[in-house]
Amino acid sequence: MSGEFEIIRKIRERARSNDDVRVGIGDDAAVLRHNNNTHLLVCSDLSIEGVHFRLDWTPPRLLGSKALAVTLSDIAAMGGVPRYALLSMALPHTVSSAFIDELLRGVFDTANRYKVALIGGDTSASTEALFLDTVAIGEVTRRQAITRGGAQTNDIIFVTGSLGASVLGLKLLQLGHRLDEETDADDVFSLTEMRQQAIRSHLIVEPRLEFGQLLSERGLATAMIDVSDGLSSDLGHILEESDCGATLRVERIPVASSVTGLSIAGMEIDPLQLALHGGEEYELLFTAAAVNRDDLLAIAQDTGVPITAIGRITDEPGLRMERNGMIEALTPAGYEHII
Amino acid sequence: MSGEFEIIRKIRERARSNDDVRVGIGDDAAVLRHNNNTHLLVCSDLSIEGVHFRLDWTPPRLLGSKALAVTLSDIAAMGGVPRYALLSMALPHTVSSAFIDELLRGVFDTANRYKVALIGGDTSASTEALFLDTVAIGEVTRRQAITRGGAQTNDIIFVTGSLGASVLGLKLLQLGHRLDEETDADDVFSLTEMRQQAIRSHLIVEPRLEFGQLLSERGLATAMIDVSDGLSSDLGHILEESDCGATLRVERIPVASSVTGLSIAGMEIDPLQLALHGGEEYELLFTAAAVNRDDLLAIAQDTGVPITAIGRITDEPGLRMERNGMIEALTPAGYEHII
Repeated sequence: MSGEFEIIRKIRERARSNDDVRVGIGDDAAVLRHNNNTHLLVCSDLSIEGVHFRLDWTPPRLLGSKALAVTLSDIAAMGGVPRYALLSMALPHTVSSAFIDELLRGVFDTANRYKVALIGGDTSASTEALFLDTVAIGEVTRRQAITRGGAQTNDIIFVTGSLGASVLGLKLLQLGHRLDEETDADDVFSLTEMRQQAIRSHLIVEPRLEFGQLLSERGLATAMIDVSDGLSSDLGHILEESDCGATLRVERIPVASSVTGLSIAGMEIDPLQLALHGGEEYELLFTAAAVNRDDLLAIAQDTGVPITAIGRITDEPGLRMERNGMIEALTPAGYEHII
Repeated sequence: MSGEFEIIRKIRERARSNDDVRVGIGDDAAVLRHNNNTHLLVCSDLSIEGVHFRLDWTPPRLLGSKALAVTLSDIAAMGGVPRYALLSMALPHTVSSAFIDELLRGVFDTANRYKVALIGGDTSASTEALFLDTVAIGEVTRRQAITRGGAQTNDIIFVTGSLGASVLGLKLLQLGHRLDEETDADDVFSLTEMRQQAIRSHLIVEPRLEFGQLLSERGLATAMIDVSDGLSSDLGHILEESDCGATLRVERIPVASSVTGLSIAGMEIDPLQLALHGGEEYELLFTAAAVNRDDLLAIAQDTGVPITAIGRITDEPGLRMERNGMIEALTPAGYEHII
């Protein structure tokens, strides 16, 4: 969606700032001066029917949970603690009262789980599409917000979890597969279960809040972003803000087991392409000095969040990937939404 | 839109709070503990094509200006100073790059005029309608936020400016009249100019920020709200939160001159009904002890914002109006949006 980035660039150029805005437009969240000890983080995310979701493939409860979780993921990507949220909803006349109850139940599931107080928002009719906008306000210890702009030459590039399953889940939904909330997960290697894993990856988001907060508290990351546009695009954002380049080690990229499994079983997908460019993963992509590797692995162990070193920051600008000992240029590919 | 109020009630019941939330859902803005001297105010407002506006009757620049101004009006209604804003936009493919530029120009017109820093938001495609959600974050001196809940028996009810023109402007737009940005306003009593005044009242919003801030600083108001749903509904919100009643003096209600003028000229409208129930006025409706009347009139004089005493708060619950010496019950009528 180059149009989206172009619009954001225009807004960013015109936005006037002030002394209390420590980080403005162009990071996962804005950073504002709050008091002597903490800074405020503020961010928002749209979820629009026909663009981000379809009502025939997401239960309303999961829709509500995800609409807030994706915004909390932006707070995670700054290393912050979410405190408050706002929910704006424009509802077409076709949605039932029971649907709205389930949607709100999902929003409150996420809010309560992460101890976020819902403090406001707006509600309106909509002529056609269901439209959700969630805002999160969080806190981070002063000077400890992790922006996109701090990556240093020779830093190692890490990513949490695995990649590619969310976009595969979207493809499966588009092909007519649906979430089975009753799945018996005994045979995790069955095709059915692998498809369900991918669909769940797309519909259910768990923001990496605890992990992000530990990186912030211990000062272990130099730059961080959440993987919402896709690994290549989001690493591109870090490189642009940090004014540096990177080389990815392709064979190190943690491809989700559902992606490799369904590929081996004959589904026509390119696992590497899904992992490199698939969006809505909500994993944390971060850079850190090599000297911190052991501390990072200890945090990964303690929190149960796997991390993988997938490349290095370079002084030479541009994004490259190393495959079978050969280095080639990698063009960031924006994540394509439904329409 | 009773559905909207019902949804808000449900959200409010479920929203968990914490010690830092001084005012949660159910006022013009949430009030959060910030530091020792100030509280934060946070609020948001949706503007949706086909519900709040139509693209064939609003220039994009005015649309952008109003989308932010209505949210700043909520900050005004708390007596606060707006500091930051977020803008979320879902744009259909049919809008041009020039349209987006003008829309953003309008947003920045309002942001710059009121010294508000745009710090974030989100941008997305939309399948059909244009959606805008604006968030404002403001500040207010600790303990000086003016909520809906402080009205006292015998307080006088005041309103700024005049009422009825915005909903009349909407009616005129629905009848096919359009804003003429080149109008020669020499003859302010011409039918054409009165229609243009009403249309401008609907399309152009000037939040009463300075006036609201002075009421807060000097502690002169006991309760306040902005007139977005309509005088009867918004006064109803104050009565509900303050647990009291009110009697309006109908002949005192300041009906906009374009409304009375066009009525006298033969347009089939009921000026009083428009003033009592018409929404999107963005005037401030507030209650104050009678002893503060002279101070309030002095502020009105200094700021050039006219105020009118339109009734009294009563211990007896319910909303009534006094007309020709007779008292009758007044049922709040919610503002109807386009659809």
